[in-house]
Amino acid sequence: MGEFELLDRIRGRLPQPGPRVLLGSGDDAAVTVPGGATATSVDSLVDGVHFRRQWSSPTQIGAKALAVALSDLAAMGAEPGEAYVVLGIPADLDEDGCLELLDGIAQVAEETGTTLAGGDVTRAPVVTLAVTVVGHAASPDDLVTRSGARPGDALVVTGKLGGAAGGLLVLEGCGGLRSYFQPHSGTNDDRMRSSIARQLEPRPRLEAGRALATAGATAMIDLSDGLGGDAGHIAAASGVGLRIEADALPLAPGLAELAEAARRDPLELAASGGEDYELLAALPEERLTDAVAAAENHGGLTRIGAVVAGEGVEIRLPGGELMEAKGFDQLGWSPPR
Amino acid sequence: MGEFELLDRIRGRLPQPGPRVLLGSGDDAAVTVPGGATATSVDSLVDGVHFRRQWSSPTQIGAKALAVALSDLAAMGAEPGEAYVVLGIPADLDEDGCLELLDGIAQVAEETGTTLAGGDVTRAPVVTLAVTVVGHAASPDDLVTRSGARPGDALVVTGKLGGAAGGLLVLEGCGGLRSYFQPHSGTNDDRMRSSIARQLEPRPRLEAGRALATAGATAMIDLSDGLGGDAGHIAAASGVGLRIEADALPLAPGLAELAEAARRDPLELAASGGEDYELLAALPEERLTDAVAAAENHGGLTRIGAVVAGEGVEIRLPGGELMEAKGFDQLGWSPPR
Repeated sequence: MGEFELLDRIRGRLPQPGPRVLLGSGDDAAVTVPGGATATSVDSLVDGVHFRRQWSSPTQIGAKALAVALSDLAAMGAEPGEAYVVLGIPADLDEDGCLELLDGIAQVAEETGTTLAGGDVTRAPVVTLAVTVVGHAASPDDLVTRSGARPGDALVVTGKLGGAAGGLLVLEGCGGLRSYFQPHSGTNDDRMRSSIARQLEPRPRLEAGRALATAGATAMIDLSDGLGGDAGHIAAASGVGLRIEADALPLAPGLAELAEAARRDPLELAASGGEDYELLAALPEERLTDAVAAAENHGGLTRIGAVVAGEGVEIRLPGGELMEAKGFDQLGWSPPR
Repeated sequence: MGEFELLDRIRGRLPQPGPRVLLGSGDDAAVTVPGGATATSVDSLVDGVHFRRQWSSPTQIGAKALAVALSDLAAMGAEPGEAYVVLGIPADLDEDGCLELLDGIAQVAEETGTTLAGGDVTRAPVVTLAVTVVGHAASPDDLVTRSGARPGDALVVTGKLGGAAGGLLVLEGCGGLRSYFQPHSGTNDDRMRSSIARQLEPRPRLEAGRALATAGATAMIDLSDGLGGDAGHIAAASGVGLRIEADALPLAPGLAELAEAARRDPLELAASGGEDYELLAALPEERLTDAVAAAENHGGLTRIGAVVAGEGVEIRLPGGELMEAKGFDQLGWSPPR
C-alpha cells in the first residue's frame, strides 16, 4: 500500500469536520475560519521514549497521542478545534496497525469534538507521532497562561495524582509487583487495571480547564512531567513561589497499596510521577468555591497549597520537612519509561 | 543538556514573533489572533527517507524542513504566519547539531516572515522533523485549492523543473556522474552545485503563489512528488483532465548535460523527479498575461498545457507519443533517495 492510498483510507475513517473547518484533509492545506483567538500546541510520541508497543495497542497509542496534545489546550482553557497528525510508520507496522492507530486518534477526536483536519504519513525507524492541536476562545483574555499567578492565590489540582506512575510501576513489574499482579483475579487486579489505564489511556481535562478559566484561574498547566516540575514552570513564568502541602495531594485510588508493594513512597509518586494529565491552577481565594463547584463533574478539584511572594516550589511534608519533587525530562538520559 | 534547557536555548535564537502572535513558545500553547481564514499544513522529514545526514548539514536539513512545509502554503496562495516544529533528536546529534538545525529553520523563517511560535523536542532513533505551518488570507475565497480547475484553463508552472532530480543524480553518483563531478573546477561543477542546491536547499514559491492567487488561479499545487503525480492530484480533485506538452517544460539550467552524463532522459527527470517545489496552477486563459507579469520577478511562469474535460494527466512528447510520469510515493518501498 502506498502513501496516497493509505491517506485515502485514513480519510474515509475520519469523523465529520467541525464548523470552523471549510476544507479538511486532502488538499495542500486545511482551510479554517477561526473567530477570536487560537491556542496552538504540538506534541510528539516516539516508541521507546513515550510508550512501548509491547504494552500498548495501536489504538491506545493513537488515542494517547491526541489526548496528551489536547491536554495542553485544556491547560489554556481552550475549546478543542482541529488536529494535524504526522504518523511515522516502521516496516513492522502493517496497514491494519496504521488504521488501528488512526482509530485511536479518531476515538479521542470524537470524544472531544476535535476535527482531524490534516496530516502526513512517512516511513520512520519506529512508530512516531507528532500531533498539532488548535484550540479556540472568543478572546485571548479567555485563555489562561502560566504567567498570571499572584501571591495570595490558592493552588488547586483536578482529579487524582499518582495513578499513571502507579500504572508504570505495574507495567515495569518493578519491586516485586510482577508477582503481585494476578490478571483476572479480584480487587488488587482492578486497582492495577485502573492505574494501568491512567498510564496508557489518559484523557485531557478539557471541561475542567474551561471551567477553571471561567472561574478566574490566573495561571494553569497540565501535569505531564510531574507536579514538582510543572509547578516550577508556573512559579518561573509568574515570578512567584508555590507552597504545596504534601498531605493535601489527592492520591489515586489504590496508589497507597501499589506503592507499598513496590516499596515506594506514594507521595513521591504523586508529586514526581508525571503523565497524570491533571491540571494545576492558581486562582484568587474568593473564586475557589465557584471553581470547586464548576469542576465537580469533571474529576473534582482539590486545594493543595498557595501562591506566595518569592520563587520556586516547596512541597512540605506533614512533619514540616520539604520533599524533593523533580520533573520528568524527556531528554534526560534515564527516562522513567 | 536536558529538554527544558535545550528549549530555552532554542527560544533565545528565535526571530521576533509576527503581529498575529500574542504569545509564542514557552507556555502550554501559543496564542494567536488570526483574521479571516487560515491555511494549515503539516510536513515531516525523516533521516534516510527525505534526507541523508552525510549529504546535508544540520542547517540545510532544518531549512529544508520549514521550506517544504511552507511550500504547501505557497500552493494555497497564503501568507506565511506561524510554524510549530517537533524535533526528534538521536543520540549522535549533539547540542551544537540541534542548534544548527534550528538555525536553518530560523533562517527560512526570517526569509519568509514566519514566526516560530512553538515546538517540542524528544529523543528519537534518527533525526526527525515534523513541521506544522499556518498561513493567512483575508478570506477563504483568497485561497486556492486543488479542486477548481475548469476545462479551457491554461496550465502553468513556476520556475524550472528537474533541478532537484539532477541534484539527486549528482549526489548519488549515479551513472558515472561521480567521476564527472570534480569539485572546485569550472563550469560543470557550477551547474552541479546549482542542481545540488535545488535538492538540498529548496525554497517555497510564496510570492509566486500569492501572485497566482491574485491573478485568478483556479487550482494550484506544489511540485513535491513530481509533476506527473502532483498534476494527477489536481485532475482528480477538480474532476478534469490535464494535457501537458513535454517540450514546453522549462528545464533547469544544466539539466540536459547532467542527464546525458547519467544516461537519463531530461524530460523524465523534469516530469517525474519531484522536490522542485515549483507551483503548478490552472487559470483562465484571459488571466495568463497578468499572471506571467506578476510572476516575472518570482521565478517566472511557463505555460505547459491546458485543462480539458475528462480525467487523468497526459504528458505528450513532441512526436505525439505519451510519456509515463509517475509521482514519488513516500511509502513506496523503493524511494528514489
